[in-house]
Amino acid sequence: MSRTIMAINAGSSSLKFQLLALPEGRVLCQGLIERIGLADAVFTLKQGEQKWQETLTIADHHAAATLLLEKLLTLHIIPSLEAIDGVGHRVAHGGEAFKDSALVTDAALAEIERLAELAPLHNPVNAAGIRIFRQALPHAPAVAVFDTSFHQTLEQSAFIYPLPWRYYDELGIRRYGFHGTSHKYVSQLLAEKLGVPLSALRVVSCHLGNGSSLCAIKGGRSVNTSMGFTPQSGVMMGTRSGDIDPSILPWVALREGKTPQQLNTLLNNESGLLGVSGVSHDYRDVEKAAQEGNARASLALTLFAERIRATIGSYIMQLGGIDALLFTGGIGENSARARHAICRDLYFLGLELDADKNQRNASFIQSEQSMVKIAVINTNEELMIARDVMRIGLAEPVEMSA
Amino acid sequence: MSRTIMAINAGSSSLKFQLLALPEGRVLCQGLIERIGLADAVFTLKQGEQKWQETLTIADHHAAATLLLEKLLTLHIIPSLEAIDGVGHRVAHGGEAFKDSALVTDAALAEIERLAELAPLHNPVNAAGIRIFRQALPHAPAVAVFDTSFHQTLEQSAFIYPLPWRYYDELGIRRYGFHGTSHKYVSQLLAEKLGVPLSALRVVSCHLGNGSSLCAIKGGRSVNTSMGFTPQSGVMMGTRSGDIDPSILPWVALREGKTPQQLNTLLNNESGLLGVSGVSHDYRDVEKAAQEGNARASLALTLFAERIRATIGSYIMQLGGIDALLFTGGIGENSARARHAICRDLYFLGLELDADKNQRNASFIQSEQSMVKIAVINTNEELMIARDVMRIGLAEPVEMSA
Repeated sequence: MSRTIMAINAGSSSLKFQLLALPEGRVLCQGLIERIGLADAVFTLKQGEQKWQETLTIADHHAAATLLLEKLLTLHIIPSLEAIDGVGHRVAHGGEAFKDSALVTDAALAEIERLAELAPLHNPVNAAGIRIFRQALPHAPAVAVFDTSFHQTLEQSAFIYPLPWRYYDELGIRRYGFHGTSHKYVSQLLAEKLGVPLSALRVVSCHLGNGSSLCAIKGGRSVNTSMGFTPQSGVMMGTRSGDIDPSILPWVALREGKTPQQLNTLLNNESGLLGVSGVSHDYRDVEKAAQEGNARASLALTLFAERIRATIGSYIMQLGGIDALLFTGGIGENSARARHAICRDLYFLGLELDADKNQRNASFIQSEQSMVKIAVINTNEELMIARDVMRIGLAEPVEMSA
Repeated sequence: MSRTIMAINAGSSSLKFQLLALPEGRVLCQGLIERIGLADAVFTLKQGEQKWQETLTIADHHAAATLLLEKLLTLHIIPSLEAIDGVGHRVAHGGEAFKDSALVTDAALAEIERLAELAPLHNPVNAAGIRIFRQALPHAPAVAVFDTSFHQTLEQSAFIYPLPWRYYDELGIRRYGFHGTSHKYVSQLLAEKLGVPLSALRVVSCHLGNGSSLCAIKGGRSVNTSMGFTPQSGVMMGTRSGDIDPSILPWVALREGKTPQQLNTLLNNESGLLGVSGVSHDYRDVEKAAQEGNARASLALTLFAERIRATIGSYIMQLGGIDALLFTGGIGENSARARHAICRDLYFLGLELDADKNQRNASFIQSEQSMVKIAVINTNEELMIARDVMRIGLAEPVEMSA
């Protein structure tokens, strides 16, 4: 029997949604409500080839959710609210409590709110989204799907920072990692496409978008990932620096009198591709500037690739080799230049691109003689969220025999 | 003709010295003056098997230098001060100005003092040492040997951080790297021992001591190194964290009200082996505790090795392979356990230890079938400094033919 599942991703002033029919994974409709809280909020909904867009005042997330559910009824996408069988919510931070997606109970919701300490910009608004849809759709089980859960399989030696112990023990400072839903989805799909069990594979997954992270996956389990305590660290991103010498921060704070908040802005909003190139945070813009001869734009692209290469090298040490390298995310799925810059001159590792397949964004882009598979896979976090609603929120009770 | 060269390493409250006969490299005497500025300063001098030690009041570095030169005369190690042909000084930071060791002129000394901006704890005291010995030995040319110079061959893509461009352009924030004299010395000696020109080798050099850094060396040139803007970053050390998620710092500053100075103390003095193990900053103490079953001590040793392995992996990507892995520094030269933990399970890279040779701290410790050479080489920064005095301070003028 087909079920109708809503996947929700609530941001500080936005609400992204997708309505799917499971298990077939068909998208019934999808869309975005932006600029929530303003008089010129924008509601966009797509159903197949059709698109509705409307600019209107939307006071808060509650109003946004109400509007969304009304639209689904008036556009006859669903016959009644009861037709929505379950709701999945993307939640940024699951700390050490959530090692898998979780059915939302009052206790789970309280824990998500407590974890706002670690993700102050995201968890409160994720929790608010959960509350609103629970109220509007009281019959539908809600499942929280965490960006961090997939990485809860990391060993201590991969997640502890060399700081005084109490920073972990008392304050919870450790590597959590993010983008877990995406890394999990694309690595599972890779195994399907290869026709090899994921348990037999050593994979490095590169989710490259405006936020970027790498994940080392051994036997289907995340064993390392480049984002850490926060999503600012690891490789270089659109506006985030990724890892730098930590002592730069106190030096800059003393030199320029910067507050901790200003340091956060520097690291998260002014650095990365934007900071080095001076052109844009968007890889496509920087690529264009580099093609037109902008030297700092070229340098930014080289830095971007080199830091990813370094991370791949460090993961190969941990995995004891590599069977497949996987590209996903906006840049990973679409930039032949980025993939080429990352994969160049690695034939000594048995890894080589096919230039033509790479240019075409083919599913597999390694050369004939490459021992390592190189895959390009479109990520689909909404589908993964909806599947977790099926698995956790709508699982048939198992009959126990005596 | 043999020359007598003094190598000086001036610290904030110490003066380390070695008197050498070059080119043969024989040590005439060596020693240390500690606790300068206190009533119970300690002067230690060794000549072959003989050792003198004295506790006395030493007001400042000037008094320390005067005492040292007097001792050399009264112990008949030198017949007169004029017998010292040249003096080499270890200087922490050479910025981008000094791409090699340099003859000390007034202009060079002014530049070393200007670079105190980048190395406030070290360059001022290094410069003071230079001034004192220039005054005491006006006949002897002085040569400054910088910890950073060897790494000035790094390409932009290896030394630029993904921060807004002005942080490099205006403030000089970039990867400088340190331990250059050591990495240069041991890599040259490695090539000699292998009987292969250094220009033909891809080497990863691991200087592991209370301060630790790695260096990727291609054709004799440093192409990457793990310390960065400061010597706090890179791999985990005795009390330094090495690289961590940078955003931990503003988070901790907000949470605990820490000042930039307190953040520096956290990163430099309270972290690393000491912070994780809670036992000691000294690898030997942590090793002992781990053997006795202390779980956090074991974790600290694992973390130490894993971060070095990750860095080696990242350098292999940059070098396009590896011909030799090199261990030096107190831990690198003496801990079979550390070398084993770093080299384990790397046969897929053609790298394998011989357990017995490793245990004996042999010069070469790879197994018969290992394609990658693994070397243990005692570093000797004083000899390298003295050689630079010969090369730069005492070079015979070259006769130019018309």
